[in-house]
Amino acid sequence: MMKIAVYGYGNLGRGVECAVRQNPDTELVAVFTRRDPAAVKTLTGVPVYSANDILSFRDKIDVLIICGGSATDLPEMTPQLARYFNVIDSFDTHARIPEHFANVNAAASENGHIALISAGWDPGMFSISRLYASAILPDGNDYTFWGRGVSQGHSDAIRRIKGVIDARQYTVPVPAALEAVRNGENPTLSTREKHTRECYVVAEESADKAAIEAEIKNMPNYFADYDTTVHFISLEELKRDHSGIPHGGCVIRTGKTGLNGECSHVIEYSLKLDSNPQFTSSALVAFARAINKMYTRGITGCKTVFDIAPVDLSPLSAEELRAHML
Amino acid sequence: MMKIAVYGYGNLGRGVECAVRQNPDTELVAVFTRRDPAAVKTLTGVPVYSANDILSFRDKIDVLIICGGSATDLPEMTPQLARYFNVIDSFDTHARIPEHFANVNAAASENGHIALISAGWDPGMFSISRLYASAILPDGNDYTFWGRGVSQGHSDAIRRIKGVIDARQYTVPVPAALEAVRNGENPTLSTREKHTRECYVVAEESADKAAIEAEIKNMPNYFADYDTTVHFISLEELKRDHSGIPHGGCVIRTGKTGLNGECSHVIEYSLKLDSNPQFTSSALVAFARAINKMYTRGITGCKTVFDIAPVDLSPLSAEELRAHML
Repeated sequence: MMKIAVYGYGNLGRGVECAVRQNPDTELVAVFTRRDPAAVKTLTGVPVYSANDILSFRDKIDVLIICGGSATDLPEMTPQLARYFNVIDSFDTHARIPEHFANVNAAASENGHIALISAGWDPGMFSISRLYASAILPDGNDYTFWGRGVSQGHSDAIRRIKGVIDARQYTVPVPAALEAVRNGENPTLSTREKHTRECYVVAEESADKAAIEAEIKNMPNYFADYDTTVHFISLEELKRDHSGIPHGGCVIRTGKTGLNGECSHVIEYSLKLDSNPQFTSSALVAFARAINKMYTRGITGCKTVFDIAPVDLSPLSAEELRAHML
Repeated sequence: MMKIAVYGYGNLGRGVECAVRQNPDTELVAVFTRRDPAAVKTLTGVPVYSANDILSFRDKIDVLIICGGSATDLPEMTPQLARYFNVIDSFDTHARIPEHFANVNAAASENGHIALISAGWDPGMFSISRLYASAILPDGNDYTFWGRGVSQGHSDAIRRIKGVIDARQYTVPVPAALEAVRNGENPTLSTREKHTRECYVVAEESADKAAIEAEIKNMPNYFADYDTTVHFISLEELKRDHSGIPHGGCVIRTGKTGLNGECSHVIEYSLKLDSNPQFTSSALVAFARAINKMYTRGITGCKTVFDIAPVDLSPLSAEELRAHML
């Protein structure tokens, strides 16, 4: 039985708590929080402890799943905790992965632990799909589409506008672009041609809606490069119709083979997720299993999803997998 | 530079020859044939040798790619050649994989070589997709659809019928079944509900077409359990419209997460291939790279695609992959 603990109890931590119940070889032994533990109630009654007390659990945890944010939490937490535990996180700031890897690798290696960073779906399963596809079809093009799904960052950006009570932003792939890619047309696509952005906004009664809409549509980096639609709705409608956190998308590689590139091939990996954090949590638990297996074989240091052989993700033996899944 | 050799020069061997040209870190040093080498001309001028002379190449090949048939060739060839070379094959008789693995593993392990069996797309990339998806979504259902594509075995079965000159059989997924699966409806599907079979048949002028059609449609194992359509066409039409060997398909897993399974997720991996053997060859070259890397790390014995960490498939370094593909 693999003993898992969760560090940080938000959507992701709750997702891990649920995922552990679906994996009979795993057990959630503790949740750690930076809040007052007495104020945190878990979904399944798993005990909650203060993050300050975590070092007393050094011999009681096989893998610690760190459920923090990538902006400020994980760059601090993961290297710090990798000194004392085998750890895994879902760090998703792509540009800062090399730096995060170096920090976590130093901490884990020096202290004889194993760590895995950036597990989830992107980075994570989408990255794995890009790697397999580019290795098999070296003469080709990669495309990644996200959505239809809620972007937390874009929703937050709208909420910061004066007069906005709440908001939800959906990233939506442009159907014509997707179709051209799937047909192997190898289009060159601008940012605007790949995705549109749909915003559902609850504004204060007295707010100037036209001004809010203009501010959203012209917001640099977030919306200015996209075709953006803004719908003003009531708080009731937002809660009723937009309370989920769905997401997904697809990674497509088109490539040529043959003596003169005469054959075309399309590889596509796609996800349709009712809950972005729950899927990420489920991936975290599977990759936690993998690093736990690797640790028992004496492997230490920081890893990414690229370093994990698929066999290590499964609760089944290599023999069973060869007989029934190959 | 990784030195590759090909054993067996048919569609698959020619595919490897072309794939090697797309991978600048690989080189095809020799083709071995059981035919008269003087009668075999390679596409790119790679030298051809008799299979009888292969042992004189023991120090000149990093990985030998065995391009034989699964029915009778590979069960003999791969264990035999694994005694002298690092080898890889695309053995695709799912039910006999454990036995083939045991034979190849014994030969490779005893002689300090590495081997990889059953690389390609099914078994191969489809198997990997099934494993990842089931590890992440343990509470779910798997579906595999094949096609639209040419089934060599079914085409051959038609060609053996009296009065048939040539034939091509396409396996086609049933659109309604695919849609139900993608919608997360978790349907229970019979063989007939999943795929149909389309046959294009060139008959002798004097042949009884109605009898041929009846014999095809009632053929046990091959056609009797499917809705089969038979089209009689001319040899010219067959050559003009059906000379390719396209294939593909998709692996779909639908699963639930959450405290009470309240969220649904759909993972899909799909392939659209203009040439079945060329795609398989391209996968063989990528997995040959992986076992060659593993061999330099001292790893021996028989492996499957499940045992290969994605990083080993790529010509790029782990650092480059983390920086640009994660």
